[in-house]
Amino acid sequence: MRPTLHTCLSPALLHLYDVSNSIVVIIDVLRATSTIATALYNGARCVIPVDSVSRCIELGRQIDGITAGERDGQVAEGLSYGNSPFEYPREFIEGKTLVLTTTNGTRLLHMALEKGAKEILTGSFPNLSSVCNHLLASKQNVILGCAAWRDKVNMEDTLFAGAVISKISQDFTINCDSSHMADTLYAKAKKDLFDFMKKNEASHYHRLMGFGLEKDIRYCLTADGANVLPIYKEGKLLLN
Amino acid sequence: MRPTLHTCLSPALLHLYDVSNSIVVIIDVLRATSTIATALYNGARCVIPVDSVSRCIELGRQIDGITAGERDGQVAEGLSYGNSPFEYPREFIEGKTLVLTTTNGTRLLHMALEKGAKEILTGSFPNLSSVCNHLLASKQNVILGCAAWRDKVNMEDTLFAGAVISKISQDFTINCDSSHMADTLYAKAKKDLFDFMKKNEASHYHRLMGFGLEKDIRYCLTADGANVLPIYKEGKLLLN
Repeated sequence: MRPTLHTCLSPALLHLYDVSNSIVVIIDVLRATSTIATALYNGARCVIPVDSVSRCIELGRQIDGITAGERDGQVAEGLSYGNSPFEYPREFIEGKTLVLTTTNGTRLLHMALEKGAKEILTGSFPNLSSVCNHLLASKQNVILGCAAWRDKVNMEDTLFAGAVISKISQDFTINCDSSHMADTLYAKAKKDLFDFMKKNEASHYHRLMGFGLEKDIRYCLTADGANVLPIYKEGKLLLN
Repeated sequence: MRPTLHTCLSPALLHLYDVSNSIVVIIDVLRATSTIATALYNGARCVIPVDSVSRCIELGRQIDGITAGERDGQVAEGLSYGNSPFEYPREFIEGKTLVLTTTNGTRLLHMALEKGAKEILTGSFPNLSSVCNHLLASKQNVILGCAAWRDKVNMEDTLFAGAVISKISQDFTINCDSSHMADTLYAKAKKDLFDFMKKNEASHYHRLMGFGLEKDIRYCLTADGANVLPIYKEGKLLLN
């Protein structure tokens, strides 16, 4: 019997899936989980995801961590850095703890935690292969959890789910239309993900382009630029 | 200013959309909304959608209506007919009232009603053009509401949303990733929707094929076989 794989397109649908019996991959491609992979790849000791700016400030002070997070495309008041993966090169982040506040990804992670997920990982194109290899080796049921945008399904998280499925589907039983749809979408888009997002007027494409962040989008849609496996343990995302 | 169009992929996401300011198209391709279009096309006086077998029996008795509905692929106990569009030819249904119990589609319809939708229609491939023409003529905001399956996103309802979008997108403002995804999916699938459902292992394809209902699936995926416009008014679906 092969393990099952499901794709949950929005946090508002998570209750429909058997979380407590699964590895949950948290997907927030633009840009939380891409930045998490990048910071850890560049030597961050760990990343602590928190759900509010005030909690970020408080925790950053307590543990002498780097506080980071944005609201409406700007570094949030009281924090030091933003959500861009380019803010966390090795020479800056190595050996440090990043306290990162994001909205959609952090919320989904805490939901998966509350529902008793067997294991929680974060996935993004920069760490696509690590995620796939881990899921193949684990032989456990998998839920690909898209963080979406305020519960609305989004394109880039769905595309990442499709990318994972395209690489590992043969080892899983997939009775899940969302997964087959994500797989089809990715097959159509994979030649040029940036161009696909642009042509299909993806909402985050527009939002981030409006902030002048084309470089971020391109990096976050490129496979294996920070190919590590962030696993959630006791409040922290750490490398395996 | 063009009106907006959004696609809601599951009833569990309906709260994210501005229902009270929109026409809502209820989509339950396999088979509720296909059967509704067919019964009305063949001269049914109206279709009354109800959410339980007991309510169906009660109402059928009160108004001397045809009671219909299935549970697990069988005509539900106490009802007279099933969910197949082929059960409602003109020689049988003309001039009669069909009391139809379905789960997913009826529930979504009632949710849209409670949220104060401006107008509620039912959409399916058999009445694709009527729905599109009406939406184009109305110049109102539109929500394409997929009934899904117990809140899980499904392929055929998403494909129908994509079919509508492919025909009317130029007249609407679409800031909605779900809509762009549905459009892309439909573009990929439209050459042979049945084959696409089969190849992509759509869950309802398997379920209905298991009941020997290939003919139903093929009919329900074919455009304009019952090209009428069911509009919900005071508890009933009627032709405009």
